[in-house]
Amino acid sequence: MDIASLVGFLLAAIFMAVSVVMGGGSFGAFVDPASIIVTIGGSLATVMICFPIKNFVQSVIVAKAVFLNKPPSIAELIEQLVKLAEISRQEGLLALEAKTQEIKDPFLVMGVQMTADGTRPDVLEYILRSEMESVNNRHKDGKAFFDQWGKMGPAFGMIGTLLGLILMLGNLSDPDALGPGMAVAMITTLYGAVLSNVMCLPFAEKLGYINKQELQAMEIIVRGILAIQAGDSPRVVAQKLSTFIPPKQRAGSNEKKAA
Amino acid sequence: MDIASLVGFLLAAIFMAVSVVMGGGSFGAFVDPASIIVTIGGSLATVMICFPIKNFVQSVIVAKAVFLNKPPSIAELIEQLVKLAEISRQEGLLALEAKTQEIKDPFLVMGVQMTADGTRPDVLEYILRSEMESVNNRHKDGKAFFDQWGKMGPAFGMIGTLLGLILMLGNLSDPDALGPGMAVAMITTLYGAVLSNVMCLPFAEKLGYINKQELQAMEIIVRGILAIQAGDSPRVVAQKLSTFIPPKQRAGSNEKKAA
Amino acid sequence: MDIASLVGFLLAAIFMAVSVVMGGGSFGAFVDPASIIVTIGGSLATVMICFPIKNFVQSVIVAKAVFLNKPPSIAELIEQLVKLAEISRQEGLLALEAKTQEIKDPFLVMGVQMTADGTRPDVLEYILRSEMESVNNRHKDGKAFFDQWGKMGPAFGMIGTLLGLILMLGNLSDPDALGPGMAVAMITTLYGAVLSNVMCLPFAEKLGYINKQELQAMEIIVRGILAIQAGDSPRVVAQKLSTFIPPKQRAGSNEKKAA
Amino acid sequence: MDIASLVGFLLAAIFMAVSVVMGGGSFGAFVDPASIIVTIGGSLATVMICFPIKNFVQSVIVAKAVFLNKPPSIAELIEQLVKLAEISRQEGLLALEAKTQEIKDPFLVMGVQMTADGTRPDVLEYILRSEMESVNNRHKDGKAFFDQWGKMGPAFGMIGTLLGLILMLGNLSDPDALGPGMAVAMITTLYGAVLSNVMCLPFAEKLGYINKQELQAMEIIVRGILAIQAGDSPRVVAQKLSTFIPPKQRAGSNEKKAA
Amino acid sequence: MDIASLVGFLLAAIFMAVSVVMGGGSFGAFVDPASIIVTIGGSLATVMICFPIKNFVQSVIVAKAVFLNKPPSIAELIEQLVKLAEISRQEGLLALEAKTQEIKDPFLVMGVQMTADGTRPDVLEYILRSEMESVNNRHKDGKAFFDQWGKMGPAFGMIGTLLGLILMLGNLSDPDALGPGMAVAMITTLYGAVLSNVMCLPFAEKLGYINKQELQAMEIIVRGILAIQAGDSPRVVAQKLSTFIPPKQRAGSNEKKAA
Repeated sequence: MDIASLVGFLLAAIFMAVSVVMGGGSFGAFVDPASIIVTIGGSLATVMICFPIKNFVQSVIVAKAVFLNKPPSIAELIEQLVKLAEISRQEGLLALEAKTQEIKDPFLVMGVQMTADGTRPDVLEYILRSEMESVNNRHKDGKAFFDQWGKMGPAFGMIGTLLGLILMLGNLSDPDALGPGMAVAMITTLYGAVLSNVMCLPFAEKLGYINKQELQAMEIIVRGILAIQAGDSPRVVAQKLSTFIPPKQRAGSNEKKAA
Repeated sequence: MDIASLVGFLLAAIFMAVSVVMGGGSFGAFVDPASIIVTIGGSLATVMICFPIKNFVQSVIVAKAVFLNKPPSIAELIEQLVKLAEISRQEGLLALEAKTQEIKDPFLVMGVQMTADGTRPDVLEYILRSEMESVNNRHKDGKAFFDQWGKMGPAFGMIGTLLGLILMLGNLSDPDALGPGMAVAMITTLYGAVLSNVMCLPFAEKLGYINKQELQAMEIIVRGILAIQAGDSPRVVAQKLSTFIPPKQRAGSNEKKAA
Repeated sequence: MDIASLVGFLLAAIFMAVSVVMGGGSFGAFVDPASIIVTIGGSLATVMICFPIKNFVQSVIVAKAVFLNKPPSIAELIEQLVKLAEISRQEGLLALEAKTQEIKDPFLVMGVQMTADGTRPDVLEYILRSEMESVNNRHKDGKAFFDQWGKMGPAFGMIGTLLGLILMLGNLSDPDALGPGMAVAMITTLYGAVLSNVMCLPFAEKLGYINKQELQAMEIIVRGILAIQAGDSPRVVAQKLSTFIPPKQRAGSNEKKAA
Repeated sequence: MDIASLVGFLLAAIFMAVSVVMGGGSFGAFVDPASIIVTIGGSLATVMICFPIKNFVQSVIVAKAVFLNKPPSIAELIEQLVKLAEISRQEGLLALEAKTQEIKDPFLVMGVQMTADGTRPDVLEYILRSEMESVNNRHKDGKAFFDQWGKMGPAFGMIGTLLGLILMLGNLSDPDALGPGMAVAMITTLYGAVLSNVMCLPFAEKLGYINKQELQAMEIIVRGILAIQAGDSPRVVAQKLSTFIPPKQRAGSNEKKAA
Repeated sequence: MDIASLVGFLLAAIFMAVSVVMGGGSFGAFVDPASIIVTIGGSLATVMICFPIKNFVQSVIVAKAVFLNKPPSIAELIEQLVKLAEISRQEGLLALEAKTQEIKDPFLVMGVQMTADGTRPDVLEYILRSEMESVNNRHKDGKAFFDQWGKMGPAFGMIGTLLGLILMLGNLSDPDALGPGMAVAMITTLYGAVLSNVMCLPFAEKLGYINKQELQAMEIIVRGILAIQAGDSPRVVAQKLSTFIPPKQRAGSNEKKAA
């Protein structure tokens, strides 16, 4: 599990709370139901205008990945591909089929299965690349949801503040109410800023990062499968793929194996 | 029909209204004819400068798609293409002509017709891709209209507020009029923000999304038609196209059919 | 003539004027010579820093196109190219030369002339594409002028307001002068916003749109000329080019002519 | 010399000065040494963080080009290349070597020299294109300096204003000092806006324009040299290159010369 | 060591301090622990949400490069490659292996080693380009950290100010506390602006610059190695690579050596 996102999320909340306490304030000053409705409700409603309902539901599910995502182990993946290259060299492409049961990654299973089936290299690459493109598109829909919400949050924060200020200024019978009135009006701006900067934009950023990581793992698989199918020696496969690992961690999978 | 956009649009309006009521305000405070003229009229007028008159009219019509658009069923489309591949395999490319009556999508009809006519593959792809490009350009014109309006709305909101403030500040005989005067001046900023964030920008976003979906369906048709013309087996056609469907929904069209 | 831009421009001015009158203000409050000098003069002066003097002059001339531009008729253009294809099929490429007198579009004349001269296809495409690129670059210079002015307008609006505020705040002997002083200071911000949003940015947008249209017409000519030179039948030429016309208007030029 | 930039720069300063005088202000109100230090010093210091010291020095030198740059004459350049094509046609590629003394442009000398040396066409294009890329990179470094300074100027304007406001508000013993205090605080914002909009951003824009012009001249040279080496007739060379000249100025170099 | 970044960083701090002293203020007015917690803590916490924990740690280490990076000497690198080309010409590719001990740059060692091993040119380029891509990705992660922090800094500055203003305005018993209260509220905005503009954004810019430089050096190595492997003469290698050096510094490595 990727603990950084959860810790970061909690820390941001704690830091804001601590600064309020240190400033001698009470949390009650920051709770206003009408402001919650206009900022969170309004921004979510406009995000609903932007996408079909199924993206909307899916994005909420996707958000779990921000906290629960486990980064793919590039080194293990390469090792696995080098082993498959060895098997294919020694026992032929057909022998790969027996190995698909041991593989967990469904994309790798797909590639190995098609290689064992004798799919033509151009069709194989075509299908694997289309699959990558589709995964990329689905991930981008999830990211787009939070990006859009992140833009709408501050917009509705401002709309809420304008609503409050116009009501207050239009009816200034009691000058003493000016301060508290402005305080209430500004709460929506605060809500919008927090919604956007503590939740939506970091979530979108993280989903983009996770997408990049998964596409990289898929790229490694595509390159590995194509190298295996082209009959590259395990050593060349290892050499080609090891560039995806930072130099310091490279030793493991880069031992020069006999070709 | 795509109910999300309509629901989102209504919810955004309701949430704003509820927050005004909860804040003890009356809606009358937010109605000002002069502000409507300068914000909505002014922004629309500048959008008229940007595009020819026919885009202007067309964009209003296009806006219906935001609420009425029905997403294309990718799975059904692929099934249809696989069936066409079967017919073409068993009865020859000419047999496809008889099927064009049963097809609803005009782009698919165009592709199938040209395949049956024996159009050269390069000319066929050239024409289908040009058609996609043209559809994309027409859609982008509709999106550009709302994007531009979405930028002009807040600009005229600010212009209206400046007009109001300059008049008010230049003639400050009665200090008690300061509050209500500022309230009126700020109404145009509110109008601009609502116009842009509740209507224009979400509409532009949705039109962009619909365009993406339609182009994806057209891409599937182009790839399917080209595969059929190249004589790919129905199984390969199904395999090539199934990558456009999310894995979980893939079973249906991906059953391995005998080649 | 493209009446939309002119109507839009006038409407924007009228809407602003009406809202001032409805707000009970007089236009005199918005006229301040010093503000005109710093906002319009200053922003134009910095635009002069950005480009050579000849672009500066040329851009003012180009601005006419915003109001006077007549969109090219794509349908007529395609019809013309199909006719040229028929002539070339029946009478040979050389017969095209006689037709150049009847053609108005200089780019089409250039293409037909070179085809009749027997220019090699690769040289022909090279020259036509270079010409398109050059037209695109010249248009972009015109658009860049208004884009840049549109950015500088609000900047000098702000600079003018800062100049006014600093003078006013530094010398606050008479508190009653505060309101009118701020009103005057804010006039430059208003000028900058109007200059940018009513003139510069819409003009730049329209010039970009006109450029897109002209390049599309040139693209049609290039594709048509290359198809004619390659000996495509008039029917194929019509088919290839008709994708540039929206489906509903397509009937005219798309009647299947005997090849 | 390109007088537009210098005139524009002076006009911008004059227009600001005139508007201050017309507003009845004195220039003394706008001079504050502490504000100069924090805005100009601070922004320059952060630009120093961004680039190596040599870019820093070089950029100051590059800034001269904004005022002193002389645009390359495209028409003369093409004429020169057509002449070289004639010589090469009549006397052979080797005869070009004797002409290198008469050529001023070092890039053209480089290309002609290599052509006369019998450099292979692919190596020749490789070297000329690499040179263009390097020139482009060096120019971009100069532009980046002013772009970065243009961003930092307003940032330090705001930082200076915040410093001033915090000091002033924290120590409000004398309410009469509020106005002048705010005036001083706002001077840094003014400095930042002027630094960025009158100097940095227009300079960056102009440097970008000059770069575009020089790269275009280099592109013409590359295409001309390659056409000469490929043995194109002077007429074809003239035809290929004349597209870089606006139609109205084209007569001179486009006279059809006998091939 | 690249002294510009360190000097710039210190100068920015000094200039701000000097302007405070010149304005008659004390530094105490700018220290507020609660503001530090919400601005620096909060922004760092949200950056933690965006990336995995390992990027977080790595980025802090990477930041050292801003101050300690030593730019690669392009001229020396080219000289080295030309020498390798000479050895390879005279003694054969295998002789290169003996030279790898003398080379410091690990990427050059990798390339020379693979050349000496007789790796196929396409595999060699594939591996070197993949390595470049990986280095680029790792660098971009470091830059992204500071870019993200640079965006979050001002956001939390604004959140802190809103927190402070809402507390203050909601509880306005003592009007005299208004000024100091606002001063404290504005400190977070100042912190956010300084954090972003003096540290995060310049660091990100510098890391991007360093990345560009390193990739350029790697590009030179790739081109050099490929030229050596292709058997180019040392003179051609020198000619091809010398375009990466500014003209004035070119003499050294560009002396025409006998081929």
